[in-house]
Amino acid sequence: MDPVAVPVGQSLKARNAALAAENRRRFQDRNLLVLNVLSSPGAGKTALLERTLTDLKGQVRAAVVVGDLATDNDARRLRRSGSPAVQITTGTICHLEAAMIARACDDLDLDHLDLLVIENVGNLVCPAGYDLGEDVRVVVYSVTEGEDKPLKYPTAFKSAHVVVVSKTDLAEATGFDRPTALENIGRLAPQARILELSARSGQGLESWYDFLRQRLRDRPSR
Amino acid sequence: MDPVAVPVGQSLKARNAALAAENRRRFQDRNLLVLNVLSSPGAGKTALLERTLTDLKGQVRAAVVVGDLATDNDARRLRRSGSPAVQITTGTICHLEAAMIARACDDLDLDHLDLLVIENVGNLVCPAGYDLGEDVRVVVYSVTEGEDKPLKYPTAFKSAHVVVVSKTDLAEATGFDRPTALENIGRLAPQARILELSARSGQGLESWYDFLRQRLRDRPSR
Repeated sequence: MDPVAVPVGQSLKARNAALAAENRRRFQDRNLLVLNVLSSPGAGKTALLERTLTDLKGQVRAAVVVGDLATDNDARRLRRSGSPAVQITTGTICHLEAAMIARACDDLDLDHLDLLVIENVGNLVCPAGYDLGEDVRVVVYSVTEGEDKPLKYPTAFKSAHVVVVSKTDLAEATGFDRPTALENIGRLAPQARILELSARSGQGLESWYDFLRQRLRDRPSR
Repeated sequence: MDPVAVPVGQSLKARNAALAAENRRRFQDRNLLVLNVLSSPGAGKTALLERTLTDLKGQVRAAVVVGDLATDNDARRLRRSGSPAVQITTGTICHLEAAMIARACDDLDLDHLDLLVIENVGNLVCPAGYDLGEDVRVVVYSVTEGEDKPLKYPTAFKSAHVVVVSKTDLAEATGFDRPTALENIGRLAPQARILELSARSGQGLESWYDFLRQRLRDRPSR
């Protein structure tokens, strides 16, 4: 057989896509709703998930897989909500990959879960290129980051099913130009549902929970 | 000659290091002070540089090379200060590389500059691994990102000569725990000078300008 030259980047992406499809089958077989949450460092992913897991306790059986370069701070924070959390420490790798998720899931009891939340590495660039087998891709974007970010990080926004505008309690202090930001999100991510909220003040959380509950109800019954 | 197997990542990094050394010689031959500015998306790199170029106008002959995935918004903003600004649009590449800087510098009159500022792609992970030939690596870290970021993005902080804690005017509104943040910076980046400032209120800018003026004075005379 003749060897075929495949650009390295492309073959890695193709391998990831195949493994993501395997993850997706594994999740669907168990009727699991899976979120992949992307954002810049410090946009408030962990704060939102902490509060979500605590508020939905008793209603939803949830677990988290969380990616970080160097620490397990986030997994420790998230475990306090009572949900299992598996930490993936990526070293210098700037994103999670489908293979990492498959391995992390071996440490979870997937058969007895409704919701799996994957908290990606804090990075608006690299994670956007890697399907993990999720149902819903959530991009969290804080009001402190400025109105132009959807235009500057188009791959992440174009691939989002949901854009969460976070830290709305700081909108006034930061001089956040909400109409421009919503226009920019609408331009790059017309497909996405936009949810504005603050995990600190609680503002807007009910719409986020309603969205999750609706998606959980919409799952085909086993 | 026998082919030698070199891991792809390693050979790209080695090539970048060689080109960074070439850039460094080119800059040193012209007695140019070169900064490489790294941060998360929305930490305030462009706002700080806009204000810096405006305030130092007439004192320092400066130019900017700015990296972005998709837009030339930042170059347009920076040109308003009167300094030349060259935009590098990286597409899906999550960092600037030495070769991109070499090409961008062909569009600048390096012989008649004192200061070249490279504004990297907004990303606290990937840019940290790429020397561009700079003298000073500046990591900008905003109070809205939380106290734990130095621990979570160690490569960037370990390689910093200066850590700028930005948006200090929002410290109170965000409940920023300054002692913990400074302790975390000190632990990861004991080598770095820490400068706390707000480009919006102007607080702390004089120390930043003093630092730049000192480094410009310290250059060997041509």
